Amino acid sequence: MPVNEAQKREIEQLRGQATETRRAVVPALEEMLYKPLPVLDQGFVRVIDYMGDDGAVVQAARVSYGRGTRQVSEDRGLLRYLMRHRHTTPFEMCEIKFHVKLPVFVARQWIRHRTASVNEYSARYSILNREFYMPAPDQLSTQSQDNRQGRGGVLQGEEAARVLDILREDAARNYADYQEMLNEDDEGNVIDPKRQGLARELARMNLPLSIYTEWYWKCDLHNLLHFLSLRADPHAQYEIRVYADAMLEALRAWVPLTAEAFEDYRMGGVHLSRAGLEAVKRMLAGEQVSAKDCGIAPREWRELMDSLGQ
Amino acid sequence: MPVNEAQKREIEQLRGQATETRRAVVPALEEMLYKPLPVLDQGFVRVIDYMGDDGAVVQAARVSYGRGTRQVSEDRGLLRYLMRHRHTTPFEMCEIKFHVKLPVFVARQWIRHRTASVNEYSARYSILNREFYMPAPDQLSTQSQDNRQGRGGVLQGEEAARVLDILREDAARNYADYQEMLNEDDEGNVIDPKRQGLARELARMNLPLSIYTEWYWKCDLHNLLHFLSLRADPHAQYEIRVYADAMLEALRAWVPLTAEAFEDYRMGGVHLSRAGLEAVKRMLAGEQVSAKDCGIAPREWRELMDSLGQ
Amino acid sequence: MPVNEAQKREIEQLRGQATETRRAVVPALEEMLYKPLPVLDQGFVRVIDYMGDDGAVVQAARVSYGRGTRQVSEDRGLLRYLMRHRHTTPFEMCEIKFHVKLPVFVARQWIRHRTASVNEYSARYSILNREFYMPAPDQLSTQSQDNRQGRGGVLQGEEAARVLDILREDAARNYADYQEMLNEDDEGNVIDPKRQGLARELARMNLPLSIYTEWYWKCDLHNLLHFLSLRADPHAQYEIRVYADAMLEALRAWVPLTAEAFEDYRMGGVHLSRAGLEAVKRMLAGEQVSAKDCGIAPREWRELMDSLGQ
Amino acid sequence: MPVNEAQKREIEQLRGQATETRRAVVPALEEMLYKPLPVLDQGFVRVIDYMGDDGAVVQAARVSYGRGTRQVSEDRGLLRYLMRHRHTTPFEMCEIKFHVKLPVFVARQWIRHRTASVNEYSARYSILNREFYMPAPDQLSTQSQDNRQGRGGVLQGEEAARVLDILREDAARNYADYQEMLNEDDEGNVIDPKRQGLARELARMNLPLSIYTEWYWKCDLHNLLHFLSLRADPHAQYEIRVYADAMLEALRAWVPLTAEAFEDYRMGGVHLSRAGLEAVKRMLAGEQVSAKDCGIAPREWRELMDSLGQ
Repeated sequence: MPVNEAQKREIEQLRGQATETRRAVVPALEEMLYKPLPVLDQGFVRVIDYMGDDGAVVQAARVSYGRGTRQVSEDRGLLRYLMRHRHTTPFEMCEIKFHVKLPVFVARQWIRHRTASVNEYSARYSILNREFYMPAPDQLSTQSQDNRQGRGGVLQGEEAARVLDILREDAARNYADYQEMLNEDDEGNVIDPKRQGLARELARMNLPLSIYTEWYWKCDLHNLLHFLSLRADPHAQYEIRVYADAMLEALRAWVPLTAEAFEDYRMGGVHLSRAGLEAVKRMLAGEQVSAKDCGIAPREWRELMDSLGQ
Repeated sequence: MPVNEAQKREIEQLRGQATETRRAVVPALEEMLYKPLPVLDQGFVRVIDYMGDDGAVVQAARVSYGRGTRQVSEDRGLLRYLMRHRHTTPFEMCEIKFHVKLPVFVARQWIRHRTASVNEYSARYSILNREFYMPAPDQLSTQSQDNRQGRGGVLQGEEAARVLDILREDAARNYADYQEMLNEDDEGNVIDPKRQGLARELARMNLPLSIYTEWYWKCDLHNLLHFLSLRADPHAQYEIRVYADAMLEALRAWVPLTAEAFEDYRMGGVHLSRAGLEAVKRMLAGEQVSAKDCGIAPREWRELMDSLGQ
Repeated sequence: MPVNEAQKREIEQLRGQATETRRAVVPALEEMLYKPLPVLDQGFVRVIDYMGDDGAVVQAARVSYGRGTRQVSEDRGLLRYLMRHRHTTPFEMCEIKFHVKLPVFVARQWIRHRTASVNEYSARYSILNREFYMPAPDQLSTQSQDNRQGRGGVLQGEEAARVLDILREDAARNYADYQEMLNEDDEGNVIDPKRQGLARELARMNLPLSIYTEWYWKCDLHNLLHFLSLRADPHAQYEIRVYADAMLEALRAWVPLTAEAFEDYRMGGVHLSRAGLEAVKRMLAGEQVSAKDCGIAPREWRELMDSLGQ
Repeated sequence: MPVNEAQKREIEQLRGQATETRRAVVPALEEMLYKPLPVLDQGFVRVIDYMGDDGAVVQAARVSYGRGTRQVSEDRGLLRYLMRHRHTTPFEMCEIKFHVKLPVFVARQWIRHRTASVNEYSARYSILNREFYMPAPDQLSTQSQDNRQGRGGVLQGEEAARVLDILREDAARNYADYQEMLNEDDEGNVIDPKRQGLARELARMNLPLSIYTEWYWKCDLHNLLHFLSLRADPHAQYEIRVYADAMLEALRAWVPLTAEAFEDYRMGGVHLSRAGLEAVKRMLAGEQVSAKDCGIAPREWRELMDSLGQ
């Protein structure tokens, strides 16, 4: 369960308040504010705060005095121009902050993005909750045969059941042992007054990487787009991709023109190398070309032909 | 003149609008929003947008669900604790964006702070205005005799007048020559139809470093504090310090508890070295100590005694 | 065992080679190069490469043409001046690269330092080794009673033995289950040909945070000093502090003058707040002062008196 | 003149020294070390230090123990794979440091790259030399008519001569006035003992943006490639592009396999948007398509057709 009853009430209370501001406001994102977007079995992404809108990007690009209040059609054209030509600095002028609940092994991938600010729940200071990620049956994938870093088909029957049993039992046992070492039960009571309990910063090392943690994560729009281009990509691990998908939804509500340009120019496109461009030119000229003709290695050639739908 | 009539009207219009938001709002900063705070003879700093407040820092430190709504006294204690122990990451959770008009030689110092986002007026693309910094008479300082990087007394009489004449005349001549090379007058009209005009990206190289430029500059609260600790410091050059002072004013309106802790622990304090601490301990024990006793070099000893008011 | 036989031979081979270079060379660090400095029970830190020396910092501070070849005494004075006045940019001119083997829960703290470059062993791509951190008996600490983020005394007798049993058994079981889910044994052979094996990127989630990983970690001297000031500090968790201590040893070999200045001005000193400085001045004037007189909160007063040895 | 006689001797002395090292050494770059590569009329780029080679990138990608000593053909394939798929972190494992002499208006563009370390000659502390950039006659370009940020043809005859006269005369006058305000002549002697002289940090504001400055600039290989992809691009201003070209030469000597992959995949290629890719697919299928058919704006369509050689 992503959030408990007390948290739900707190969120509702926050959503019930409204104050006047002179700043740029995005109604579609206000509508989402504070609400958890569920991800995986017990995780979520919540937008906690934001600064700026499509107009703030335009304004920075024009270094003008106002909010960039020309016609929408002109703003759209400028945003698309910036995206196409990788003029990235104006996109740094918007900022967004998320609250995220996610398994530790996902957090380990995520944190590799260094151009963001993070405050994570501290297991030195506090005790982690008994919450572990258990994959849905359709995500119990085999190791890919042709890609060392990827998934193949889905496990079936007994093997699938056995995997889930292992994950569930090991998590339960390790958590029970975590509590025993801490000498503290679910209610925070001492289990055995004759024992002293291991320090939290040590006991945590017994927890598996499937345990959930949470953090505040804040970055600017440019770096968010970079994150999404890598993590909403089909090559990203499913368990982080679903977080990126939820954030993409927030992106579309927040900066619709930027999101459209991003999906057209960055997500949906393809990069041709010098040799790949040469190959395309020859093909457009009606030539029959092969990998060898073009000096392109077989694997790369296959990637190129795939992307061109050949 | 920091802003012209058209800009004034635009700012008034922006300030006249208000919209509802569910985000944290800081009334004292809203009161300042968009208004130019005048700096130097023709410069300014304007707060254009912000995200978060003192509560957002507290919330990140607690990784809690709400806005950090405990009693103010507890929040104040936590913020002071964070500042004292240099737990800096929660301060990254707030963001602010300024619009700044400043001389190029000040911009060159400012840009050395790399953890900010910047969009500057482009002199490749546009023509710079005829606006140059002219120091006020009480800022026409001599070179310091005892500090190679600082100012001494103030120039007087004829020498001061001569300096101002030089600065004014050279700026005027260089700007007139800039226009002649561009072949474009104040109204944007071609001066001589038989000439073609030099590219803007080249003509600008004739302009002196006293010319004003402007930019949007955005950074998080932690990095703003770092900037202010260096640039609102007495060792900073006067011409950048006055910008830092204006930003400090915005800081106090925005995050009053953080600003107070910052001024108590970072601006107003002093760092004692291992040997300096040893010296203080011996002095507290009633010992008469000298630089030599303590193994401290003369210059450093002088700095230490100054800071201790000895 | 930090490194195996094959690795030892490879390291010896690398250490046996020498080539001529025109770059600055530091013999004391060359002596250490590639050698594992053992840390914890199975971890290590190895210096893999470096760029620059004390002279490179001096050179950058002087923006001179040569290598900064004045007398050592002058260089020392300049380095101490830079350190004392937090002129940090010249220290960015040196770079060092480490190869580190460390438990995952330590890696999670370490990676919060964002101004470094990292390449970690990938558990999406490869299978992790059966190597887990087991604390030495004198490190099995209890939770601190007066500091929620710290350790108290050491567990004794039966409780200590029980903790080690738990850590050992859970690690062994989780690893065996990891292999079973992967359907792959220690030699990389398929365990059961009728099963397909779970993808590596999923199976890893069953591993506890005590498992060892390894990475290349590279940063500049300024950022290394910042890392060390936080992680070689008594408040840092023991398990990361021992890595910082090993890196401090490399620092002293690499840039002895910088290391000395760092230990004098950053590690060994203390920061006095505005009010703390005021209190010291009054004490030096022979006044009897209390926390209340000075407007300092009790906890902070205690810290101040402790640091002054009062 | 890029370097004077004393500097030449110092460089020769440095180049005459060689020491043994266990680190990776790149003979082709050692050959270049310290030598100024002349750029513009009085500027230069010199490689001062470096860390790592192509093998260090490979090693990081493999997180192996040795230097990445497989066959060159395998290393080349891996490097090309990393470049093609934008796996950028292994390229951060190499570092290079340049000494650069460049006009201030170029330095202002350059410094926008924030992921580098910089130490610049300080005009607060020292007096700048009388060295100004004067464009070669074939670089005296007009403003482009179809691109607001670019150059058109070359100025001829009288207009060209007039521009050079202005640049030369204004630079000479502003420098003479700089000296007069400082009250210091070329030999550092006081001009008029009755005057006190303006502080250096103020007098510098009279200098034009064409004056030369110098700095040490250090960054990792990944960020260098990013810099080069933007600044060695035909859209970059000529005066910074020539610096990028000189650095590209150093790149080819330093990491030849990386440089080759960079030029094939990043410099020589083209990015197709979602709609652009769709258009190419339809063209390859033999369809006649127009901008309108494909939902592509006219300007973007022209760019696309240009890049495809249509």
